[in-house]
Amino acid sequence: MNPLIIRSPEVFREKQNIDARVHHRVTAIDLQKRAVRVVNLGTGKTLEERFDHLLIATGASIILPKIPGLNARGVYTLSTLQSGIALREAMDQAGPQRIVLVGAGYIGLEMAENFIQRGFQVSIVEQAPQVMRTIDEDLAALLAAELKKNGVQLFLEESLQGFELEGGGVRAVVTDRRTLPADLVILGLGVRPNSELAGEAGIPLGKTGGIKVNERMETEIEGVWAAGNCAEALHLVSRRPVVFALGTVANKQGRVAGINIAGGQATFPGVVGTAMVKVFDWEVARTGLQEREAKQAGIIAASVKIEGRTRAGYYPGAGKIFVKITFEPGNGRLLGGQIVGQEGAGKRIDVLATALHAGMTVEEMINLDLGYSPPFSPAWDPILIACRQAAGQL
Amino acid sequence: MNPLIIRSPEVFREKQNIDARVHHRVTAIDLQKRAVRVVNLGTGKTLEERFDHLLIATGASIILPKIPGLNARGVYTLSTLQSGIALREAMDQAGPQRIVLVGAGYIGLEMAENFIQRGFQVSIVEQAPQVMRTIDEDLAALLAAELKKNGVQLFLEESLQGFELEGGGVRAVVTDRRTLPADLVILGLGVRPNSELAGEAGIPLGKTGGIKVNERMETEIEGVWAAGNCAEALHLVSRRPVVFALGTVANKQGRVAGINIAGGQATFPGVVGTAMVKVFDWEVARTGLQEREAKQAGIIAASVKIEGRTRAGYYPGAGKIFVKITFEPGNGRLLGGQIVGQEGAGKRIDVLATALHAGMTVEEMINLDLGYSPPFSPAWDPILIACRQAAGQL
Repeated sequence: MNPLIIRSPEVFREKQNIDARVHHRVTAIDLQKRAVRVVNLGTGKTLEERFDHLLIATGASIILPKIPGLNARGVYTLSTLQSGIALREAMDQAGPQRIVLVGAGYIGLEMAENFIQRGFQVSIVEQAPQVMRTIDEDLAALLAAELKKNGVQLFLEESLQGFELEGGGVRAVVTDRRTLPADLVILGLGVRPNSELAGEAGIPLGKTGGIKVNERMETEIEGVWAAGNCAEALHLVSRRPVVFALGTVANKQGRVAGINIAGGQATFPGVVGTAMVKVFDWEVARTGLQEREAKQAGIIAASVKIEGRTRAGYYPGAGKIFVKITFEPGNGRLLGGQIVGQEGAGKRIDVLATALHAGMTVEEMINLDLGYSPPFSPAWDPILIACRQAAGQL
Repeated sequence: MNPLIIRSPEVFREKQNIDARVHHRVTAIDLQKRAVRVVNLGTGKTLEERFDHLLIATGASIILPKIPGLNARGVYTLSTLQSGIALREAMDQAGPQRIVLVGAGYIGLEMAENFIQRGFQVSIVEQAPQVMRTIDEDLAALLAAELKKNGVQLFLEESLQGFELEGGGVRAVVTDRRTLPADLVILGLGVRPNSELAGEAGIPLGKTGGIKVNERMETEIEGVWAAGNCAEALHLVSRRPVVFALGTVANKQGRVAGINIAGGQATFPGVVGTAMVKVFDWEVARTGLQEREAKQAGIIAASVKIEGRTRAGYYPGAGKIFVKITFEPGNGRLLGGQIVGQEGAGKRIDVLATALHAGMTVEEMINLDLGYSPPFSPAWDPILIACRQAAGQL
């Protein structure tokens, strides 16, 4: 078994008495009968399964552009384990040399690093004027420089128009500004919640497209639950429902749904939007709301940015770290933060994430008793320096 | 100038108009006259300086055993920059080979690593049954094993009785169980606040021996302030005054005192007792109260300990991490935490420190939206796994 599979259907069956049927697709939910219609993809047979409790954990699907050629040889997406295996096999077949990544989000950035390390020519095409829209433009510029330094060609503010094909295979990516020769293309344009099945059955969806759930992960239909990338979560800073297609959120929601279905009591209060990615030598992390996001949520926001060191300045390996803190100028409430830095920088985001959960102000945070020792931090952790600067503007 | 000196007296004078007089010792504080008596150590002359505000920042002194031979050649302590320079010079003079460190606290452990890396024979003598009393015995045992693995000889439950001297130099360390040949001895037995000067002047001291201060860092005498290792701080978990001789606390207290003296408004709410140290390949961190400390403070406490990984299991460099969480069984309030682990483990303590400041419960912490990406963490951060396990015991 692939070591990335945490638990096989056999283990579910033998150790936990859970009948995990893979290669079965649910095609309809009947809330009257409290039953689902299931197709066995192996035999093609349809059956009906009744339920007392139903958990919808249908995940998310890759967003695909509406252009021809998506099924051409050499055009890939990355979501399932199978899609990863297929891509790896294509890479191993010495053929492709020129890789074009469409989309400069997490997938695009992580792939770029991996392809460069394996010696390919890599280009990224991104419609936005910056990479990684989940951080601000000034910090994204650091990533763009890092990508270029490592040999990645970056085409910002260009949108995918189509492909040039030859004999059923891709030959080039066509943008609104150029034609990029490509042996292999990966589309990383984000995902959307798989909520159609729920929606068709009459289970209420939110404006986000995700399934509406309460803190217990129950939908508006009693005994019908939803968790993971198909379900909404409350953003604890904006107090608005969001869908973050992240494994951490899915894991926590699934645990809460499972406890409640089994008769226990658990709640999932919500998320603060924490995410991380490694881009060559930079660690990138973000949490809460960017200024732009705060404004969209009707919250007045201001930001400060500081440059510091990951360790005591004199200690070997002390690297750069940029910390941006976003806060409410009126009351000093922390709204979010972003970090770009070298080794040891990224996980500092967790202090900001924890402070967001606790609703702390930047003034309260100045005196946080964070860990210090020269191999790990300057005496004033960069997070505290940023908070000090933010508090100075109140 | 030594690069470890952040700001010289000249810079204080020229850039900030601060008359920083080094080599001057204050010998008495006269609260009636509101003046201090100062000896110029260069000329021996005594002068009197009047004050409107007085800040006492006298730091801490090394605790010395009451035995003869402390002034012998080869017997060192480590506190000031000068003592470090003297020790380094002794090391560089090819002479000493056998080093005995007395005390297995932060100083002893850090010195052991440095001396081993420079090729010396290193022994540690420690009175307690474990190294590093600020973490629990089970975690300390991991450090003891690491020290031994790296060639450090460890003599626990042995107390220093005296030295064997020869021609004015140390030849051996005598404990209650053996005589250890030694060319160089370093005493690392902790520090105590330098509060005599304040005490003699009638400025109230606490039971800790530190100078009593309020949140603004003012002593019980108006216009007389204290900050740093000579001053008390409120422990935010036990709600009792403590003296932690740490640079982080001193820095924060000094800032608050300075702002208030200059007419501003700032408060230092207190500490949670966070500390870190690197011991060869282990990162060690602690915050809040150990079970033992909680009991001393009259708080009922329980603990859980988990073993996890610093990164996704399949990611290169995924190391071990042990997380212990101490909490109140009644209401689930987090009381403290301890971490021992490989690269990337230690700074995770900051999540626990922040949660202690915010007064969070282990149940609230289960759903903290901490950063995840395979190079940085498993999907369930080890901190969250420990919180989950603690919450399961409520």
